[in-house]
Amino acid sequence: MDRIVYTPIGVIRSPFKQVTGAPIQPGGAKGVRGSAELNPAMEEGLNDLDGFSHIILLYHFHRSEGFALTVTPFLDDQPRGLFATRAPRRPNAIGLSVVRLMARENNVLHIEDVDILDGTPLLDIKPYVPEFDVKQVERCGWLADKAKGATDVKADRRFA
Amino acid sequence: MDRIVYTPIGVIRSPFKQVTGAPIQPGGAKGVRGSAELNPAMEEGLNDLDGFSHIILLYHFHRSEGFALTVTPFLDDQPRGLFATRAPRRPNAIGLSVVRLMARENNVLHIEDVDILDGTPLLDIKPYVPEFDVKQVERCGWLADKAKGATDVKADRRFA
Repeated sequence: MDRIVYTPIGVIRSPFKQVTGAPIQPGGAKGVRGSAELNPAMEEGLNDLDGFSHIILLYHFHRSEGFALTVTPFLDDQPRGLFATRAPRRPNAIGLSVVRLMARENNVLHIEDVDILDGTPLLDIKPYVPEFDVKQVERCGWLADKAKGATDVKADRRFA
Repeated sequence: MDRIVYTPIGVIRSPFKQVTGAPIQPGGAKGVRGSAELNPAMEEGLNDLDGFSHIILLYHFHRSEGFALTVTPFLDDQPRGLFATRAPRRPNAIGLSVVRLMARENNVLHIEDVDILDGTPLLDIKPYVPEFDVKQVERCGWLADKAKGATDVKADRRFA
């Protein structure tokens, strides 16, 4: 299995039309509203989702091309192994954000804390479930004293 | 952008050779060990990852075919909207597990709490970062009183 083909199930809408200045993580997008607009044919799959306060969005970083296996992340001044970062330029450019679900309206999800570029192709939606998704972390590597900075740092063009 | 093509970066190894009897979430795979074997060309990208106690694996549910927009999940006896479940048969069959990283050995990650089938194509690895990935959930929908059951429930063939 050396090629896996996916088809977007919809598109993400947000105030961030450009890479430069976009937040680099949901912490930097507190209160920012957007939406996930599903293809109408997928609408039925959204049933029961409005019971969840948070959802996981998986999407394609459509503005990223290529990748490097060593990168200097927005939050650091040291080069790091790509898979130890959340940088968008990846061999498979899949993005992951946990966002707040405000409401569902037919095929549209109104979401908050959106750190995603407008027009991003949406690949999947999953309910965020503490029993599955919350872990007690002992070590947080190079991000241990830097992750909090993600609230303030905005993207530049290094991964565009 | 209606077709997105990904190429696996490696493969996941685990004791679960078959769908039937496999755990349905990492909670049901406590202490189960496995590995993520990256293509040697990707090895450099693993640098700095061993500083993290937990990592996010994104992978392709290679044993799932097709999908239905309404499913009856392993943990429930009511039909639910697909995107309100973690069922593997999805329009884009991307799986997500947060696992414990025990050690890195060159291009191989030794991992624990592995709920993934042996031979699963690996798409991406991200560091698990509490500031980005841990949310205070107010509502957990139909899973509110059922997610804990994921520790005991094993998969049957309904999504195979």
